Amino acid sequence: MVQEEQDFNKMWSDLGMDVAAHNSLLDAVGQMYETVFLTQKNRPKSTTYLDNFANNLHSGRIREMVDARKDGKTKKIIGSFCLYVPEEIVIAAGGIEVGLCAGANWNTDEAERYIPRNTCPLIKGFMGFKLGRVCPYIESADLVVGENTCDGKKKAYEQFSKMKPMYVMDVPHVRNNNTKEIWRQEIYRFAEKMEDETGQKITLESLSRAIKLVNDKRRALQRLSMTRAADPAPISGLDSLLTIQAAFMDDSARLTQAINALAAECEERAATGVGVKPHGAKRVLYTGTPMAVPNWKLFNIIEKCGGVVVGEECCTGSRYYKDLVPEDGKTVEEMLDAIADRYLNIHCAIFTPNQDRRDDVISMAHRLHVNGVIDCSLQFCTLYDMESFSMEEAVQKAGIPYMHISTDYSTEDEGQLKTRVEAFLEMI
Amino acid sequence: MVQEEQDFNKMWSDLGMDVAAHNSLLDAVGQMYETVFLTQKNRPKSTTYLDNFANNLHSGRIREMVDARKDGKTKKIIGSFCLYVPEEIVIAAGGIEVGLCAGANWNTDEAERYIPRNTCPLIKGFMGFKLGRVCPYIESADLVVGENTCDGKKKAYEQFSKMKPMYVMDVPHVRNNNTKEIWRQEIYRFAEKMEDETGQKITLESLSRAIKLVNDKRRALQRLSMTRAADPAPISGLDSLLTIQAAFMDDSARLTQAINALAAECEERAATGVGVKPHGAKRVLYTGTPMAVPNWKLFNIIEKCGGVVVGEECCTGSRYYKDLVPEDGKTVEEMLDAIADRYLNIHCAIFTPNQDRRDDVISMAHRLHVNGVIDCSLQFCTLYDMESFSMEEAVQKAGIPYMHISTDYSTEDEGQLKTRVEAFLEMI
Repeated sequence: MVQEEQDFNKMWSDLGMDVAAHNSLLDAVGQMYETVFLTQKNRPKSTTYLDNFANNLHSGRIREMVDARKDGKTKKIIGSFCLYVPEEIVIAAGGIEVGLCAGANWNTDEAERYIPRNTCPLIKGFMGFKLGRVCPYIESADLVVGENTCDGKKKAYEQFSKMKPMYVMDVPHVRNNNTKEIWRQEIYRFAEKMEDETGQKITLESLSRAIKLVNDKRRALQRLSMTRAADPAPISGLDSLLTIQAAFMDDSARLTQAINALAAECEERAATGVGVKPHGAKRVLYTGTPMAVPNWKLFNIIEKCGGVVVGEECCTGSRYYKDLVPEDGKTVEEMLDAIADRYLNIHCAIFTPNQDRRDDVISMAHRLHVNGVIDCSLQFCTLYDMESFSMEEAVQKAGIPYMHISTDYSTEDEGQLKTRVEAFLEMI
Repeated sequence: MVQEEQDFNKMWSDLGMDVAAHNSLLDAVGQMYETVFLTQKNRPKSTTYLDNFANNLHSGRIREMVDARKDGKTKKIIGSFCLYVPEEIVIAAGGIEVGLCAGANWNTDEAERYIPRNTCPLIKGFMGFKLGRVCPYIESADLVVGENTCDGKKKAYEQFSKMKPMYVMDVPHVRNNNTKEIWRQEIYRFAEKMEDETGQKITLESLSRAIKLVNDKRRALQRLSMTRAADPAPISGLDSLLTIQAAFMDDSARLTQAINALAAECEERAATGVGVKPHGAKRVLYTGTPMAVPNWKLFNIIEKCGGVVVGEECCTGSRYYKDLVPEDGKTVEEMLDAIADRYLNIHCAIFTPNQDRRDDVISMAHRLHVNGVIDCSLQFCTLYDMESFSMEEAVQKAGIPYMHISTDYSTEDEGQLKTRVEAFLEMI
């Protein structure tokens, strides 16, 4: 164990990380994990995979990726922050795509030398993690792929690219034939970039295999999510969220197997009425900004207050798994077109108009038998803050109770949030 | 005079405005105008045109537009909030394009029922003006044309369009061959929309005349701006700003004549060393967010503190007039293409990367012999807040003193701003 710790320290140091600072980060997140996850009652047994995943997040998983790159099994590690960066293409070109650290405050003072104080915590988070050299995903990545989604990220990438090799995808903000075509070309451009980066051609076979691999992961997540329609809910929102968070970082094939095991257990639980909360516990649908590891704050509050989150309409939720890429493409071009279509159909708040997102929320709310919707935006996220007004209108019109929350990564408002969430759960 | 007042009250009432509220708004803005503009010393005589313009802003000018529409001289009044909406096309289709009220707080509580508190004051302003029915430009407009520039406007338009007929242009955020083509098509789509709206075809002759008309206005503004390189500056920043603000609202041909008269007087003043401030007064270049009427706050502070603003790198400044549309197009298509090129070259902070804006600031700073740059963003304007970091770096690297300000439309921070500006002017 001591030997292993020393080995990891050496690995982090070789990656150019600030090992001492990183160790204190790990301690803090480890403690948080214990308090948030390990205090949960009646978890499915298969969540031991998740505990293991969390435990290896910055150590074993990084070792695995770095070794794979050393052995040539993986050509490049590609970091990203957003659902619009198609992992099928990265994998087909021989790379691994991983989500980067952005879920906690770190090195905020230093970050505010590059971006304004009034910046959403997710952006401030990734700047701080990079500046503090405490994210092994950022440090091990050969290239970071950004996307012009919100104003904040678009401009923050201009700063981030001074610190790390970056490539930025341009994402349309309206859906019409013109932007569909432009996005298709953007997907082609990205495929070429990945081939250049990894030195490996994307072939019919490699792309077909990659699509299948990622579809399998998405199918497993769909299967798991279906079980959450049961009352009592067979799995907590926290564990479900962690499963998706893992989908951005863990090995795809292994994780898919684990999710399927979890789903099978949850199906069994649903059939036999076993759950994480008593029957009748208030069921919440989450919608809003994504939640990167270790941002478990709101879900923890909801579930510690006796509610249960049974669905997530967000990037770390249904948007990640609800759509597959058709597997019957006959040429690389056909498959790339299918990928372009699939990714353009993500109902992100960057699009205008964005009625589809409201429709998704309402249909999920019905399908999952929720008692209320909690819509949360990270502070200073203009897009989700703005959309909360039309979301509230739509959800209430559908006869579903609604609450909007604006929060950040600090613990300061936890008391206040707890009071609001408790009141909401009582009311619904 | 009393008769005239009654007539205007009837006109406002016919436009569906809240006449009582509007009268109190006019009183407040009138008083502000007196305090800000009429206390200035040594103004060029030709600024009487500007006083007259300000006096007629909500009355005579509206009457003129409404009458022109009644007489069929103008087919439609088209409102807009942004430089990307090409007035040449509106004019060629027989319309008038006018900027809409967005420069003051109004009805903020009501506006916050539709958009978040953390919204930039410009957006909150136009929502509030509409909800309070106190902007005769909004109320007389047949159509409002928005543009997907920043996240805030993009989403606010979804709300605004529930209250007013709207058409939204999609503006690219990167410059490459693809987006150039998309933007060209967006310009064509807009031209068609204007033809539909006004029922008047855009012809070779009408477009050619419109281009000439708008170019003449821009040329006059260029000519005026050149005179501001002189020390002492022949005209204040306040009066220059008001001239550009007028360019969005006043009759083009008449205003062009007035600007040329002002420019001629300023040339004469520059030649004979007559200025609005003593020789050696600290010269400031403004860059940042646009300033809609009656947002004269920062310029007033700078100039009341003894400085003089000699240039504006912003949408209510050089970006409006620095580029012309070539007048030698042989077909409507050629001219529309030239318009597309001209408008895509506006160096707005929505673009990434946006080095051109920094280059513009530095070249203006040299050309206008400034002592320092004041970069101001309206509060919660992510794009300009974000860009202020790279702007500061670039300006300081060029050896020019720099100050960033974040402010809104309230008077609460005026004391603090005055202290900061005074210190900056002393230091430079």
